Formats: sequence, C-alpha cells, structure tokens
Amino acid sequence: MDFVAPHLSDLNPSPRLLLGPGPSMVPPRVLSSMATPLVGHLDPDFLRILADVRRLLQYTFQTKNELTLAISGTGTAGMEAALCNLIEPGDRVLACIQGFFGQRLAELASRHGATVQTLEVPWGQVFDPERIRSALRASPAKLVTLVHAETSTGACQPEIEAIARFVHEAGALLILDVVTSLGGLPVSIDAWDVDVAYSASQKGLSAPPGLAPLTVGPRALQAIQRRSRPPVFYLDLLELQRYWGDPPAYHHTAPISSFYALREALRLVAEEGLPARHQRHLENAERLWNGLEDLGLEMLVPRHLRLPTLSTPRLPSGVEDALLRRRLLDEFGIEIAGGFGPLAGKIWRIGLMGHSSRRENVVLLLAALRELLARS
Amino acid sequence: MDFVAPHLSDLNPSPRLLLGPGPSMVPPRVLSSMATPLVGHLDPDFLRILADVRRLLQYTFQTKNELTLAISGTGTAGMEAALCNLIEPGDRVLACIQGFFGQRLAELASRHGATVQTLEVPWGQVFDPERIRSALRASPAKLVTLVHAETSTGACQPEIEAIARFVHEAGALLILDVVTSLGGLPVSIDAWDVDVAYSASQKGLSAPPGLAPLTVGPRALQAIQRRSRPPVFYLDLLELQRYWGDPPAYHHTAPISSFYALREALRLVAEEGLPARHQRHLENAERLWNGLEDLGLEMLVPRHLRLPTLSTPRLPSGVEDALLRRRLLDEFGIEIAGGFGPLAGKIWRIGLMGHSSRRENVVLLLAALRELLARS
Repeated sequence: MDFVAPHLSDLNPSPRLLLGPGPSMVPPRVLSSMATPLVGHLDPDFLRILADVRRLLQYTFQTKNELTLAISGTGTAGMEAALCNLIEPGDRVLACIQGFFGQRLAELASRHGATVQTLEVPWGQVFDPERIRSALRASPAKLVTLVHAETSTGACQPEIEAIARFVHEAGALLILDVVTSLGGLPVSIDAWDVDVAYSASQKGLSAPPGLAPLTVGPRALQAIQRRSRPPVFYLDLLELQRYWGDPPAYHHTAPISSFYALREALRLVAEEGLPARHQRHLENAERLWNGLEDLGLEMLVPRHLRLPTLSTPRLPSGVEDALLRRRLLDEFGIEIAGGFGPLAGKIWRIGLMGHSSRRENVVLLLAALRELLARS
Repeated sequence: MDFVAPHLSDLNPSPRLLLGPGPSMVPPRVLSSMATPLVGHLDPDFLRILADVRRLLQYTFQTKNELTLAISGTGTAGMEAALCNLIEPGDRVLACIQGFFGQRLAELASRHGATVQTLEVPWGQVFDPERIRSALRASPAKLVTLVHAETSTGACQPEIEAIARFVHEAGALLILDVVTSLGGLPVSIDAWDVDVAYSASQKGLSAPPGLAPLTVGPRALQAIQRRSRPPVFYLDLLELQRYWGDPPAYHHTAPISSFYALREALRLVAEEGLPARHQRHLENAERLWNGLEDLGLEMLVPRHLRLPTLSTPRLPSGVEDALLRRRLLDEFGIEIAGGFGPLAGKIWRIGLMGHSSRRENVVLLLAALRELLARS
C-alpha cells in the first residue's frame, strides 16, 4: 500500500441562501427524502417511484407524452439527449440563439454531426416568430433548437406556440430548452405542440441537481424510431424508454436517492398547483424588480419579456462585480451570479426559483445589496 | 390548465437489505450527508469538496493521476466516457469479453465508431494474459477493453499488471472496468499501469448511485489531448478537467448532494483503510461461500478467481429462480439478483459490497435461503 489514507474534516458546507441561476434552495421535505434508505433500482417499489415521477412530470410539463422521464444526468445531459437522439450526421439544424445556452445548443448539434445554421439576436432580446418562419422558408432544416428561458440573459421567449406552428409547417421538429422555466412560469408542451423539451431538477423544481426531466412528443418519437441507433448509449432514449418500461430492461443503475428527491419536489409542485406556483414566482420577481429599481439599478430585459425565475439587473457604474458578489457571499451568505460572455461584468443574474422564490429572500437580498452598494 | 395535479402518497419505500450487484447498503453517515443543505456548484466550499473527492479517489484508486474525478452520471456513463474520449472513428479496439459488461464495452466501442475485434472466454472464466498478447501481435489495436470484476459472472480477472505490460508492448492503451472491485478488493491503478479505469459510486464505495469515479493516466491523457474533440460534450474529459480546475470553467451543474455523499463514503473508506476493508470483504465472502456450500449449492467460479464483492452460486435443481427471489424480497426484505444472458435462471448474484459486507447480513441471508430452499 503506497498511498497514505487522507483524513479529512467532517462535511460542513457554509449556510447559503441560493439566489443564483441554480441550484435553488431545496425544501426540507426534499432534503429529508434524500436521506431515505435505498431500495434496488429494479425493486417493485422503485418501479412505482419511476411511474409516479413520470405522472408528476406529465403534469408539470402539461403533456400526455408517454415518453416523459428524467435522464440520469444534469440539464446539460438533457440537452445532449434531445440533440443526439434526433441528429444524424449531415442533418440540418436551425439554431436560434439569444444567449449562452442557445449557443451551446448550436455547438452540441455541430459536435453530433449536424450542419448548423444559426439565427441570432443580441443577448437579452428574443425572436420575432416571423424571423424563424422566414429562415426556414429560405433554408429548410430537420430540427429547430430554441431556448424558452435563457439563463444567461433573463429573457423569456414568447409565442412558442406560433413558432412551433411555423416549424411544423416547414416539416421540422422543435427542441425547446425549458431549463429555467419549468416549475416557475407556464410551460405547456401539448398546447404549444413542442416536440422535445428538457429541463433540470435544480431550478424551478427545487430538487438537487442530477436529473434532467425530458419529454418527447409523437413526431419526435417517430423520427427517433426511424433512424439508426444513436452513438451515445447512456442517453439513448429508446433504451431509456425500455428501462422505464414494465417490466424494465436493464440499461443503467438509476440514481435512486435523486429520484426520491425529484418525486418529493414534484409532489410539492402538484400540492401547490402550477397556477399558484407561477403566481408566487411572478409576485416575488415583481417585488425584486421594484426593489432593484429603487436602488437605481436598470434591468437588462424589458418588463414584458422578463423571466420571473431569473432577473438580470445591469451593474451600477463603478461597482466591482466579483468583489461585491464575494462580499454578498462572505458577509451575508447569499449567492447570486455574474454575467456570461458579452454580459460578463455587466449584469448580475438573480434567481428566484422554486423554494428560493420567497418574499423574505427578496427583502434580505435587497437590504444586503443596499448596504454593499452604499459602501462601494 | 388542462391537467389535474396528481396527489400521491408520502415516499415510503420498503425496508430492504441490499445484497444484489448494487446499489449496496448506504451507511447512516452517508445517508445523512445527502440531507445537508446545498451550496452552489461554483461556491468556494464546493470547490474544496471536489478537491477532497479527488484526493480521496486518488487514494482509493491507488494513483497519482491528476485527472481523477467523478463523472456526473452512473457507472455506465463512466464506461462511455472512457470509450468516447479515446475512440475516433475507425480506431481498432480489442474487446476482451468474459461476460455482460465486457460485451457492453464492445458494443459501446462499436457505437462510437471503432472497429472492434473481440476475444472471448465462456462466462465465468477469465483470460490468460498470453492470449491477449497473442491477439495484439496478430492484430494491433489502439485500445484494449477489459473488465476486472465481471458483475454478470462473479469472476475476477487476475494478472492485470501482466496484461497492461503486454498491451503497452503492443503500443495500445488499457481501459479497465473496476465497477465491482473498487473499494472491495485491491485495485492498484499505478502499480498495474492501467491507462483509464472507471467505477461506480453504489457498489464497493456504498454511496448512492449517480457518480462514476474515473482516472486517466499520462499515456491516455496524451492520446485524448492529441485527438479532435469527442462528439459527446457531457462526457468530454478535457472539458471536465477544466470544470474540476481552479478556477473552474463552467461545464454543467454538478450534482452537489451526490458529491456530499461520495465524499463521506470515501472518507469511510479512508478511515477503515483499504487493507482492512479488503480483508473484511474477503472474510465475509468466505463465510458466505462456506455457508452456500453447506446448503449444497455449487459456485460458478473456482475459489481462487472469485470476487469477494459478488458471489455466484448455481441454482439448485428444481428451484424456481424468480419465485424464490420474490419470496426473499417479500418475506425477508432481502434483495439478491438473478443471472444475465446465458446464465439467466442458472445462477444467483449475491453482493457483499461496502456497507453490505457484514457478518450479520451473511448469517441472515443463509438462514433465509435455508428456509426458502427447504420449502421449494
């Protein structure tokens, strides 16, 4: 034995109020569920838990899609699963880019062998559906990728239903990123007629990160069934469909405890009810927006396009981004995030998602910001 | 709102003694760690946790490899990460197959575009290193895939050091699956000179499933750095290396709670010490083997090749596999597993891994089996 065993201290992470772009605060009932002793991943009890998660996700996504499940990975794995199950080398993809995650969809589509055409708006803006319609008329595609709630900018893409109609008129499929919207603002997969949507467990749903809810509509399922098997086994949706089947066909070992947590988090969504939950998110976001304006901060995104889950004030001039956020963390235990790419150093990203969307959190954050801004 | 919110019962899975091929029993300290409130995934506290996990994994793998981390997915994601970072289309892979997981490595290599040559032994047997040497002399390869502890058969491949030497003599790299060995029997990545090894959190380490420890040696790292970026972003090891760097570059949102649990599980490994832990696994396995023989059961694998983590008795004649396992689960709360593929209905797979490897578990299982066999 050449290696000495390290002896490390007890786990003792600092208490944090999570008001960044995720993870959000995890409610006590969900935290407790993670400490529940495990059953096996093929145990009849676990199969019932998977069935419950599917049913709760169908409610949360507002869909009847049978192929609704959670990928055993984070939101990034959900994004990659959506892409790699539909793209065959040479397929044409129209990637609509309003920020970092739209850009990432384009990059991943390209990695998986697609010929990617991009359509861009400046970060913080959104698309006029007619622009997507025209782009598809000029140059048809098999897939269109779009972000509903752009985590890098705080902007919410409206008129998804119209966009989906134009995409389908052009014979294409719509992949929609609802990572930062699901559980925090209305997402209606069936009413909007979205073909594939994916999200993450740790934002509007307030479970810990580690699972990616995903739903596949009938057009997309047919496209997946028609093609040859995708190269990525771990994210292969037809394999996962069988694993979530009854009886299940072994694929991988599901992260049992994470599913306990997701089930509990989704039960909380169902108990609150989506309309009440959306209203709570909106009210707390409005409190935050008004408070930030009182502090003299301008918002990047006009009010009618703002995400209630993620607010993006511009930094006041003369404020050092990293220093202020570090003080917020060290002195108040509050996490918020900075900007990405062209918005680095220019905006903050403040999340009020799921269990983080509480009036007292808004009040505390505004008071802390007031004090720190007065000092800087 | 067209969809009615489902109202489901409290989470209340049945109490289980997990003696299958994983997940194993999770110790109370690890379960409690999962309920710890979360910090952000870029929080300085979380970066220290990642650094701790790396250090603890280096000890557990017995390696100095800097690129040692845990993939944010299950063991299957670890397997796919090992393959997809090294395989470029047309690369030649020699897949050594002693059972289901060796076969899966061959299939995944082929999915990722490799030209795969297979070398097989009957399920339950292992390779003579000379056979691998000869195969590589007859037909060179870039990669050799091998399973150390074959979860489908209970056989342990000996002489990994000699095999690694032959692989390197032939200019190839060795990928070793240590999913069912790490934490339960000696695994010495540096002494054996293995190029890439991966495992899973839920077997010998007794954390919940959801993370895949993985280590990459210098030869493999060079090969990964030389190639063009792999198609799979989520499992891209150079991206993950940067995410685990200081400062970290955003890649995905790590499953915070699962890392709390893995850190605690690895601390328990370090506190017990690998030699004592291996000895415990061996002693409890020997108790089980002797007890199974007393019950008149034959073992599939000869004693000197048996895994202490996973024992595979043949079913006595006249016993109905599924019925007996169902009774074991329903009447005693004990999970064991049946056989796969050619061994379906012919063997049981009994895991004594990590926290499941306890004398009282062996005694209880043997008593329960004695009663159920007498009835059947």
